Amino acid sequence: MKVAFLGPESSFSNEAAKKAFPKEELVPVESISKIFESVESKKTDAGIIPLENSNEGSITQTLDALASTELVIIAETYLEVNQCLLSNEKVSSIKKIFSHPQGFAQCRTWVEKNFPKAELVECASTAGAAKKAAGEKNSAAIASMSAANKFGLKILAKSIQDSADNKTRFAVIVKKDFSGAIKFPPSSKEFKTSLLFGVKDKPGSLFDAIKSFKDYNVNMTKIESRPSRKNAWEYVFFIDISGSIKDEPIMKAIVELNKHCAFIKILGSYKRIE
Amino acid sequence: MKVAFLGPESSFSNEAAKKAFPKEELVPVESISKIFESVESKKTDAGIIPLENSNEGSITQTLDALASTELVIIAETYLEVNQCLLSNEKVSSIKKIFSHPQGFAQCRTWVEKNFPKAELVECASTAGAAKKAAGEKNSAAIASMSAANKFGLKILAKSIQDSADNKTRFAVIVKKDFSGAIKFPPSSKEFKTSLLFGVKDKPGSLFDAIKSFKDYNVNMTKIESRPSRKNAWEYVFFIDISGSIKDEPIMKAIVELNKHCAFIKILGSYKRIE
Repeated sequence: MKVAFLGPESSFSNEAAKKAFPKEELVPVESISKIFESVESKKTDAGIIPLENSNEGSITQTLDALASTELVIIAETYLEVNQCLLSNEKVSSIKKIFSHPQGFAQCRTWVEKNFPKAELVECASTAGAAKKAAGEKNSAAIASMSAANKFGLKILAKSIQDSADNKTRFAVIVKKDFSGAIKFPPSSKEFKTSLLFGVKDKPGSLFDAIKSFKDYNVNMTKIESRPSRKNAWEYVFFIDISGSIKDEPIMKAIVELNKHCAFIKILGSYKRIE
Repeated sequence: MKVAFLGPESSFSNEAAKKAFPKEELVPVESISKIFESVESKKTDAGIIPLENSNEGSITQTLDALASTELVIIAETYLEVNQCLLSNEKVSSIKKIFSHPQGFAQCRTWVEKNFPKAELVECASTAGAAKKAAGEKNSAAIASMSAANKFGLKILAKSIQDSADNKTRFAVIVKKDFSGAIKFPPSSKEFKTSLLFGVKDKPGSLFDAIKSFKDYNVNMTKIESRPSRKNAWEYVFFIDISGSIKDEPIMKAIVELNKHCAFIKILGSYKRIE
């Protein structure tokens, strides 16, 4: 079995992929959209995607890709994210910092304070950023500790993210018709279900939609809105609920929800890999 | 009167500032957080901040700053955003592109297709990006048409954002004790009210909170969640409703809302500058 992750090796996605798939072949790809492409075209059997960060919120690119493709989520896992400043230079000679946009966002306060004048260069992953920093003078990267080993860089500062408690939630995605059996490491007992929907264009629709869950005592753990990308100021909503789509109250709530929605897409019911 | 905006001149924020304050002194600052600082410290009387984009969604830095400061919104305005590729080089020799993270996000598909290998450098504003592109070989910027004139760059491509209908919503912020009278250009008749709240940590709290608006027939036009930045996976919610805080049903709804919330912060009732 092959699993696509946001590479290169030593990215945070690589760590999450090892946690979920300790024995499978892991295939680095260059961008989040390429993970989706790789799974859709069956180049790989599964993919692991970053969903949200505990401080920075949703990875909007991932949400938009979940909305526009037909892949489903079959597991999730959480990873502690410690951002480090990596370089072979002295702090005083660093003029350029490479990282993923999430790396910059998670460390914004620290970077503004310590490197107000540095050029911040967006890379497709933090590991890719470390690779670049290793090859360019007067530069550094915001990346993982393991990227320091991998690319031969020194760790100039540890845990530089603005909040000490910094976790990223990852999801495992497969094609709808995926029929292989995956044996995941020990997982939670409880299921979580993720879905997205667009409400009809009339006042109170969002309330009526959410009420469907309340009416059947279904616990909503998260709600997130994203632009529909069809019409300006029209939104789609991403919702997480506790339980499986096979639970009767959830099935009933979704039938009710359907009455108030322009569309519903069930992203999957899955457990959390510990 | 002095108004802070995300500079330098010719940024989209500058255009929005001119629309809201055609006759006041406009003061460019370097980052969104510096707009908040400038107004809080009374260096300027007001500030104009980007709130959300019709395709990319909320400007998360702005939402987080609204949550952590005590400034209020007194007006909003919408700006059509046409991103252009600006450079004095041939397309084939462009190796580096400067822009604001929102500029990259709005043009992601176009950039991946046309410049899959270019280095993408984050700048604090699109106008700042144009300034850099004017001073560096083999580079370009994603910025406004007016930035091309300002920094002497050629427009290599127009309207390169992924969605033709691309608007950004801006808000005018002042200190709570601001007592000056601002005469804005012609505005909408209707008020909009923005607030943020954190729900109590028990199942169904978010539903009960939203129900407060429904019970008083208050129309919720937007809901957005952001990490609380206090505890991992704890959220605050940003809500827009139609009407003014002085309307009786809204007052009553907020009293009811308060029962279900850990905290509420009213960001302001305001009109839209046309």
